[in-house]
Amino acid sequence: MAVYTDVSPEELEAFLATYEIGRLRAFKGIAEGVENSNYLLQTEAGSFILTLYEKRVNPADLPFFIGLMEHLASRGIDCPQPVKNRAGAALGTLAGRPAAIATFLVGTSVRRPSAGHCAALGTALAGLHKAGADFTAFRRANALSVPGWRPLFEQAEARADTVAPGLAALIADELATLEPNWPTGLPAGVIHADLFPDNVFFTDGRLSGLIDFYFACNDLLAYDIAICLNAWCFEPDGAYNQTKGRALLAAYQAERPLEPAEIDALTLLCRGAALRFLLTRLVDWLNVPPGALVRPHDPKDYLRRLRFHRAVRNVRDYGIALAGSAA
Amino acid sequence: MAVYTDVSPEELEAFLATYEIGRLRAFKGIAEGVENSNYLLQTEAGSFILTLYEKRVNPADLPFFIGLMEHLASRGIDCPQPVKNRAGAALGTLAGRPAAIATFLVGTSVRRPSAGHCAALGTALAGLHKAGADFTAFRRANALSVPGWRPLFEQAEARADTVAPGLAALIADELATLEPNWPTGLPAGVIHADLFPDNVFFTDGRLSGLIDFYFACNDLLAYDIAICLNAWCFEPDGAYNQTKGRALLAAYQAERPLEPAEIDALTLLCRGAALRFLLTRLVDWLNVPPGALVRPHDPKDYLRRLRFHRAVRNVRDYGIALAGSAA
Repeated sequence: MAVYTDVSPEELEAFLATYEIGRLRAFKGIAEGVENSNYLLQTEAGSFILTLYEKRVNPADLPFFIGLMEHLASRGIDCPQPVKNRAGAALGTLAGRPAAIATFLVGTSVRRPSAGHCAALGTALAGLHKAGADFTAFRRANALSVPGWRPLFEQAEARADTVAPGLAALIADELATLEPNWPTGLPAGVIHADLFPDNVFFTDGRLSGLIDFYFACNDLLAYDIAICLNAWCFEPDGAYNQTKGRALLAAYQAERPLEPAEIDALTLLCRGAALRFLLTRLVDWLNVPPGALVRPHDPKDYLRRLRFHRAVRNVRDYGIALAGSAA
Repeated sequence: MAVYTDVSPEELEAFLATYEIGRLRAFKGIAEGVENSNYLLQTEAGSFILTLYEKRVNPADLPFFIGLMEHLASRGIDCPQPVKNRAGAALGTLAGRPAAIATFLVGTSVRRPSAGHCAALGTALAGLHKAGADFTAFRRANALSVPGWRPLFEQAEARADTVAPGLAALIADELATLEPNWPTGLPAGVIHADLFPDNVFFTDGRLSGLIDFYFACNDLLAYDIAICLNAWCFEPDGAYNQTKGRALLAAYQAERPLEPAEIDALTLLCRGAALRFLLTRLVDWLNVPPGALVRPHDPKDYLRRLRFHRAVRNVRDYGIALAGSAA
């Protein structure tokens, strides 16, 4: 649910006059994305998404996001393509906020991904990583990687055990393991960093696009895989589905084979990805205003994932095909 | 902001299979309407609005709403037209709620209506009243007319003065006037009862449609005019704009001339309309949960309107052309 800034029709009309997308036919706030306000625009030229960047987005990051989407679209990745105004700029100001118009991506997300969906995701993720390899115009560090986790924990520590007994000790133990042992030197580049099922569109069973690049950053490519394994390959009861994991990993490797060091690091990266979402969800969960209309995600879903990864003794448990195995 | 019920893509697919509107291309929750969940659907056949009826809507009223929209559309009124499924029904069940699909209406609402917009509204309102005259298949009483006001006041009375000093006494006085003097015997029929600017779409300056019929009911036609005068003809500073009122009333009367008794009752009807929205906004205002994301409308806007109407001594103050005057 995301319409934080109210745009008057008069302001909108003036903003659209700076673009060459024809006259407005319809305009509706939509419940997509969680950080920004998003509107569906219909004009004589078709459908578009208008995004107003809200306070949680750092304006200094906008050239990275906009430039990345332009770059990826130019490399054939199906993602929203920023539309330039008459002055050639993809970023303007509307209702006092930075604002951009992007093309409308056809498709719908799936709630319960199948192994086939996971395979399609693996292919698209590798394609994204390859297409992003030469995006060097801007850089953006991952604010939610290892150095960002302890400050989140400190916000949540005192009340963590109200969510699950022993949670504070478990997170402290996990940080003590991950901080000194986090892999370095692995292949790095642009990662999406939030490629949950609701950010992936399918049309007639085929993957038709990726959206919401507002967590994208420069980081380890295999960390993006770890985020996706967490987000796509666990069942509602918390069990890891190795068939889905195998499908995702094999499809990814068909496009970009993992290096041995990436495979060795996979369990640790999966633990880190689970901890990252556990921590942000825990902080949101503990800070929900009473009576708020939006219910945050239950952090315990990611606690179950973390426990799974901590128990993994062999990376084959993820369903990965090791060198010498059949792909 | 209105997406209260979450619809999974799988449930949606099964629901759409009962319609003949082609395959799904896009699906987004939209911030439209306040009582129900609304989604934009794009299919091979075009754009549609999917509405899930939430708890505040009485399922027994749905045949009235759906039947009314079908009736009005068949009479040439630009309003959402319910789409029937393969079984010929306009009402189905989705995610455990009654649900309907309607055609997508092109246009955008205005925030600050001009006199021209008010004139267009007057024409459309009279057209609506004439088109609704032979809608007799279902009836729906106005739950928010005179008998509904005192119960609302009783919910708000104890804390009303925290909103504005003397408010409780003013409302009590107003009820004491309106309850025994509310007009009877005036022309009645189907009224929209909530025709605020956000429920009226314009395209290229022309009125292109009316939406949100979920307060529609059988009541005095002139009461609908009074609601519109309140909603369209006051400036942000609380002043009545007689030019706008004149435009609305003249355009309405060009389609359906008011009877003398309706004109005589106009001030009282305007007071009643102002009181109705003052009361519902006051109750919402006093009951907003702390930390809620949705800020209710300030009831004081309608207090200012009510004070204006209480001071009106001559119905000409609304800008109405009386018999013998120039139209």
